[in-house]
Amino acid sequence: MVIARLCALLLLALSFATGGGARAEDGYRLWLRNAPVGHAAQHGRPTVTLIGSDSPTARLARDELQQALTELRIASRSAITLRKRARAGERDGAFRIDGATITSASDSGLLYGSFALLRELGQGKALGAIRLDESPAYTLRMLNHWDDPDGHVERGYAGRSIFDWWHLPGHVDARMTDYARANASVGINGVVVNNVNARAMMLEPRYIAKVKALADTFRPWGIRVYVSARFSAPRDIGGLATADPLDPAVRAWWKAKADEIYAAIPDFGGFLVKANSEGQPGPQDYGRSHADGANMLAAAIGDRGTVIWRAFVYAAENKEDRAKQAFTEFQPLDGKFAPNVVVQVKNGPIDFQPREPFHPLFGAMPKTRLSLELQITKEYLGFASHLAFLAPLFEEVLDADTGRSGSVARTVSMIAGVANTGSDRNWTGSHFDQANWYAFGRLAWDPSLPSARIAREWAALTFSLDPAFLGAVVPMMLGSRAAVVDYMTPLGLAHLMGTGHHYGPAPWVSDLARPEWNPVYYHRADRDGIGFDRTPTGSDALAQYAADVAQRLLADEELLLWFRRVPWDYRLGNGRTLWEELSRRYDRGVAAVDRMRVTWATLKPHVDAQRHRAVADFLEIQRDEAQWWRDASLAYWSAKSGRALPAGHAVPAHPLAWYQAQRFPEAPGE
Amino acid sequence: MVIARLCALLLLALSFATGGGARAEDGYRLWLRNAPVGHAAQHGRPTVTLIGSDSPTARLARDELQQALTELRIASRSAITLRKRARAGERDGAFRIDGATITSASDSGLLYGSFALLRELGQGKALGAIRLDESPAYTLRMLNHWDDPDGHVERGYAGRSIFDWWHLPGHVDARMTDYARANASVGINGVVVNNVNARAMMLEPRYIAKVKALADTFRPWGIRVYVSARFSAPRDIGGLATADPLDPAVRAWWKAKADEIYAAIPDFGGFLVKANSEGQPGPQDYGRSHADGANMLAAAIGDRGTVIWRAFVYAAENKEDRAKQAFTEFQPLDGKFAPNVVVQVKNGPIDFQPREPFHPLFGAMPKTRLSLELQITKEYLGFASHLAFLAPLFEEVLDADTGRSGSVARTVSMIAGVANTGSDRNWTGSHFDQANWYAFGRLAWDPSLPSARIAREWAALTFSLDPAFLGAVVPMMLGSRAAVVDYMTPLGLAHLMGTGHHYGPAPWVSDLARPEWNPVYYHRADRDGIGFDRTPTGSDALAQYAADVAQRLLADEELLLWFRRVPWDYRLGNGRTLWEELSRRYDRGVAAVDRMRVTWATLKPHVDAQRHRAVADFLEIQRDEAQWWRDASLAYWSAKSGRALPAGHAVPAHPLAWYQAQRFPEAPGE
Repeated sequence: MVIARLCALLLLALSFATGGGARAEDGYRLWLRNAPVGHAAQHGRPTVTLIGSDSPTARLARDELQQALTELRIASRSAITLRKRARAGERDGAFRIDGATITSASDSGLLYGSFALLRELGQGKALGAIRLDESPAYTLRMLNHWDDPDGHVERGYAGRSIFDWWHLPGHVDARMTDYARANASVGINGVVVNNVNARAMMLEPRYIAKVKALADTFRPWGIRVYVSARFSAPRDIGGLATADPLDPAVRAWWKAKADEIYAAIPDFGGFLVKANSEGQPGPQDYGRSHADGANMLAAAIGDRGTVIWRAFVYAAENKEDRAKQAFTEFQPLDGKFAPNVVVQVKNGPIDFQPREPFHPLFGAMPKTRLSLELQITKEYLGFASHLAFLAPLFEEVLDADTGRSGSVARTVSMIAGVANTGSDRNWTGSHFDQANWYAFGRLAWDPSLPSARIAREWAALTFSLDPAFLGAVVPMMLGSRAAVVDYMTPLGLAHLMGTGHHYGPAPWVSDLARPEWNPVYYHRADRDGIGFDRTPTGSDALAQYAADVAQRLLADEELLLWFRRVPWDYRLGNGRTLWEELSRRYDRGVAAVDRMRVTWATLKPHVDAQRHRAVADFLEIQRDEAQWWRDASLAYWSAKSGRALPAGHAVPAHPLAWYQAQRFPEAPGE
Repeated sequence: MVIARLCALLLLALSFATGGGARAEDGYRLWLRNAPVGHAAQHGRPTVTLIGSDSPTARLARDELQQALTELRIASRSAITLRKRARAGERDGAFRIDGATITSASDSGLLYGSFALLRELGQGKALGAIRLDESPAYTLRMLNHWDDPDGHVERGYAGRSIFDWWHLPGHVDARMTDYARANASVGINGVVVNNVNARAMMLEPRYIAKVKALADTFRPWGIRVYVSARFSAPRDIGGLATADPLDPAVRAWWKAKADEIYAAIPDFGGFLVKANSEGQPGPQDYGRSHADGANMLAAAIGDRGTVIWRAFVYAAENKEDRAKQAFTEFQPLDGKFAPNVVVQVKNGPIDFQPREPFHPLFGAMPKTRLSLELQITKEYLGFASHLAFLAPLFEEVLDADTGRSGSVARTVSMIAGVANTGSDRNWTGSHFDQANWYAFGRLAWDPSLPSARIAREWAALTFSLDPAFLGAVVPMMLGSRAAVVDYMTPLGLAHLMGTGHHYGPAPWVSDLARPEWNPVYYHRADRDGIGFDRTPTGSDALAQYAADVAQRLLADEELLLWFRRVPWDYRLGNGRTLWEELSRRYDRGVAAVDRMRVTWATLKPHVDAQRHRAVADFLEIQRDEAQWWRDASLAYWSAKSGRALPAGHAVPAHPLAWYQAQRFPEAPGE
C-alpha cells in the first residue's frame, strides 16, 4: 500500500514535470536528448570514476556521463572510468575508448571522449562493445558568429544573437552553458563572438568585460573566445589619426589593446579580421598589403593567440572576374604571413552558393596556414524554412582534390563555420538546421566522416533510433541539398537571388551600382546562350587551378555554366539540350521537395507532435518556394532565350512581370 | 516486486522528463505553473462536466480545468461543473462561481470563470469555499504590440516580436497558443498585432493572410485581433494620389480594404491609428480633423468593429506646452466622433513617465468613448533589468478623481496596454516583468483591484505560496515603482533620459532639433531654480483640469516640479529645502534597490535556482544603474545650481563630464 502510494506520487510528479507549457520536445535539447535506450528495470545510478584529473573540464565530463547514463537507462552495474594519463605526442582533445574506459592525455579529451561514448550509446551500441581511438584533424574548430552588439545577426534566421549582449556581464544566461555544452559535444573549441563586419565598440572596456563573462562560462567546456576586430579601431576608438599598420603608434595601440584583453581573458583566442572587403577598412587604405595588416596584429598578440585574416575580398574598382580576385590578391602573399596568422578562405570563389567549385587558393599557398570557411547558416539555401542538409556540400569541398597537395581537407589547418544559432528555442530556427551545426562540428573533428554516417547519427540522437525512421529520413536528408541546387541554381548557375536580403529568385536584376552585385553578371543569359566563360577565351579563372583539376572541372556538367558560356541548344552528355536539361533540373528540384513532404508525413508515428508539425509546416513553405524559384527562373530564361518551355514542362503560374514585382523589404538576416 | 519495478520505471521517467536542458522553471509557464497545492495521496483525475455548450472556447475551459486540477493535485473526488445558461443583461465574459460550479451566459465567461477558479485554488483556497460573481468592467481589454513586420519591437526588451511574422501563415508556432492562453487567463480579449508606427504593408493581402492565421489561433481563447493602420495606405499601397479622408476614392478604398479583411477574419476587431503625431501621416495633412479621419475609417468598418484613434499628438511647429497639446486638439472634438470610434489617451499628458499626473482629457470628453493607454513595457522605467511593479502606477491613474465624472477608471470605456512580451523564453525579458502583464490584465478586468492583492496573487502563482516568501516579496514589489521614481525623476521631474533609446540619465541634453525633445525643456534648471511652471504664470496646463483637481495637483509635492518652477531653497512641507529633498530622494531610491537585493537574497530557499539567479543578477544591474542615475543627476543639478551636495550626501563617483560622455548606440528598443 505504501508502495502503491509512492507510485501514485511519482506518477503525479511526472505528469506535472511534463505537462503544460514545459514541453520537453521543442527542440531545445538538440542531439543531446539522451532518450532511453536501455531497459528500465535495470536502471540505477551508474558509477563514473575520474582518475588523474580534477579540473573543471574533467568534472564536467564525469557529470555529463553520470547524468546521461541515467537518462539513457544504461544498466546500473555499469562502471565507467575516465582516466587522464600523459601520452607523448597526443594532440589536445584526443582520446581512446576501450569498453567502459575513456583515456586521454588532456582534460578536453576526457570531455570529447565522454560525448563520443554517449553518442555511440545513444545509437544503440552496447557499452562493452565500444572501441574508439580518435584525434581531431585540426587544432582549431571554430564557429564564427555574425552577431552585432545590438542583437541583430547578419544572415541569421534563428532570432536574435544567442549572446544576450545587453545584459552581459551582469547576467550570463543559463543558456550560455547549454550552448557551450552543445559545441563541446561535437568538438567545437573556438567561438568568434561577433560579426566580421565588426563594430570597434567590441574592443572597448565595456565589451571586453562582456566577452570575458562569456569566456569564463565557455572555458570549462574547452572553448576559447575570439573577437572580430575592426581594422580602423585605432582611429575609431583609439584617438589616433591613422590605422596604418606600419605606424608605430598604431602598432603600440594594438599591442596595448591585446594586453588589456589578455589581462581579462588569459586564454583569449585572437582576432578575426575582414579587411578591405565590401567597404570594411583595411591596410590597403594606407597602401599596405594584407600581410602587413595581419602581421601587425599577429605581433600584438604574439604567441598568445591567432590572427585569422579573411581572404574574402573583391573590389569595386576591380574589373577582374570576381571569382578570381581573392586568388590574385592573396596567392602572391604566400610565405609572407607571420606564423600565428591563418588566412581564412571560403569554400568557393564567390560566396557560399548552393554549389560552387572549391576555392583555387586551397593548395596554392603551401607556405601559409589556411582555414576553410563554411557557412552553416543558409543565407543562399532558403533560410531556415528550407530543409537542406549541408554535410554533402561540406564533404564535397573537403574531399575535392586540389591537384597540388591533396584534398582541400589536407591543405587546411583549421575549419570555421558561420554559425546558424540564435535565440530561437530550437537554437537554429528549424529543427533540421540543427543537423548542420552538428555536421559542421563532426567534420571539423574528422573531415573524412561520410555525410550518411553524420546524418544517421544526428537523426538517431535527435528523433528516433527506429530503423524504419532512419531508413526514410537519412536518404531524405542526403538528397536535400541537391534539391536546392536543382530548384535554385542548377548546372553551375550562381548568385541569382533577391537583392540585399538574398531571399527568392531575381535573376533579372541588372541595375545595382557595382556590376558584380547583379545576377546578370553571373549568368549572362541572352538570346544566344547562358553562362560565364571562365575558360581561356573568357576570364580564364580556370587557370587558377592545377592543370589537371581545371580539365576535370571543365568536364563536370554540374558546373557547366560556372565555367562555360554555351548556346541554349548545347548538347549535354545525356543527349538533352541545355534548355531541356535546365527545365528538367528545376522540375526535379520541385519534385524532390514534394517527395520530402510525403516522406515526412509517413514518419509521424516516430516523431513527437510539436516537432513533426513544425517540420511539416516548413516543408510546405519550401514546396511553395521551390515552385516559385522554378517558375520565376524558367519564366525569365524563357524570355531571355526567346524560347517556349520544352514539351512536358508546365508553364509558370504567373507572367514574368509578376515575379519581378515581388518585394520583401522585411526579409530576415540582412 | 512488480510494483517496485513500476515505481523504479516512473522514477526514471521523472528524472528524464525533468533532467538536462528541459528545465521546467525557466519562466515559460508564467503564473500558470499550477504548482501542487493538494495532497498527493488523494490525487486522481477530477471530473469536469460541461453543460450547455460544446464550443471550442467552452471545451478549452473544460480541458484547462482538467489539466490544471491534476497538476494542482486537487482531490480526485472533486467534480466541477461548467454550465452555460442564458441570463438577461449579463456582459460577455461575466461568470459566477459557487463552490464547484461555474456558470456563465457566455463561452468566454466559462473560460474566465475556469481561470478564476484555478487562480483561487492556486492560492490555497479550498474548492468548496470559492464564491465569485464577476463581470468585466470594460468590454475591450486590449494589448497593443509595437511590433514591426521585420520582427523588431519598438520599446521592446524581451527579444523579437512574439509573432513569427516571417513564417506566418505557413507556420503558426505552438507558442501562439500559449500566448493566447496566458492572455485569456487574465481576461485580455483584444490584441493589436503591430506597431502604431505602422507599415502599410500590414494591409496587403500577404499580411492579411498572416493576421488571419493569428486570429484563427486566438479566437477560441476569446481574443479578437486588431491592426494598426497607416493613414496614408491608400497612397502607399492603394495607387491613389491622396489619402484625404473626405475624398470618395479614399473612402471607397478603405471600405474595400475593410471588406477584404472581414472576408478573411469575420470577427476582426478593427483599426488602431496613430495620426499626425511624431511624423506619422494623418488627416491634418489634408486640412481635415482627427474626427474626419477617424470617422472615415469608422464608416469603412461599420458595426463590425472599432476604430481606436490615439490622442497622443504634439506638433513640431506648435509652441504650446507639449503637455497641453492633446487636450487643446481633441477636447473641442468631443461629440464629433462616430459611435464606433474610441479615442485612446495615454495615462499622463507627456509620455509614460515614471510618474505623471493623469491626463486632463479624462473626464473632459463626456460625449466620446475614451480608452486609457498604459505602457506595460518599461520604456522609461529601466527596461527589463529594473524591477518595477507597475500596478501602483496603473492604480494611481485609475483611481485619480477627474473632478468631472468620477475617477479615471469611470470615465473610460476600454483599457489598452503596450505589451511587454517578446520571443524571450520568459516572455517579458525578466521574471518580474511578467507581473506587469498580469497586473494589466487584472486591472483591465477590474480596475478596483488593489495593487497589493494583484502582487500577492501573482507572486503566489509564479513563485511560492509560502507566507514567509509572500510577506517579503509583496512589499518589495509594491515599493519598487516608487524607488524608480526616486532614483530617476523625483518630485515631479520628467523626461530626463538618454536620447532615442531612452536609456540612462541625460538631463543635460539640449541640442536636439525640436525643443520638446530635449530634457532641458522639461526641467528648466538653472542657478535660480528648477521645474516647469504650468500655473497661470506659466503655460497654465493646470487650467485643463477641473478647478478643484487643479488645486489638489498643485498641492501635491510628488508633482511639485511638474507644475511649478521653484528656487533651490524652496521649503517643502517637511521643512527641507528642495535641494535637500531632491538629494534625499535620489539616495532613498538607491537605498531601496539595495534593500530589494538583500530581500531577494533571503528568498533563495523559496525560489528555484535558475529564476532566483536571474532576478538576483538583474537586481545587481539595477543597483548599479540606480546609482548611475543618482550620481549623474546630482552632478548635473549641482553644476546647474552652483551648489555643492547637501551635507551627508556622497559626491558622485565621476565628474559630470564622464556621465555626459557615455554612449550606448546599441541600446535596445529604439
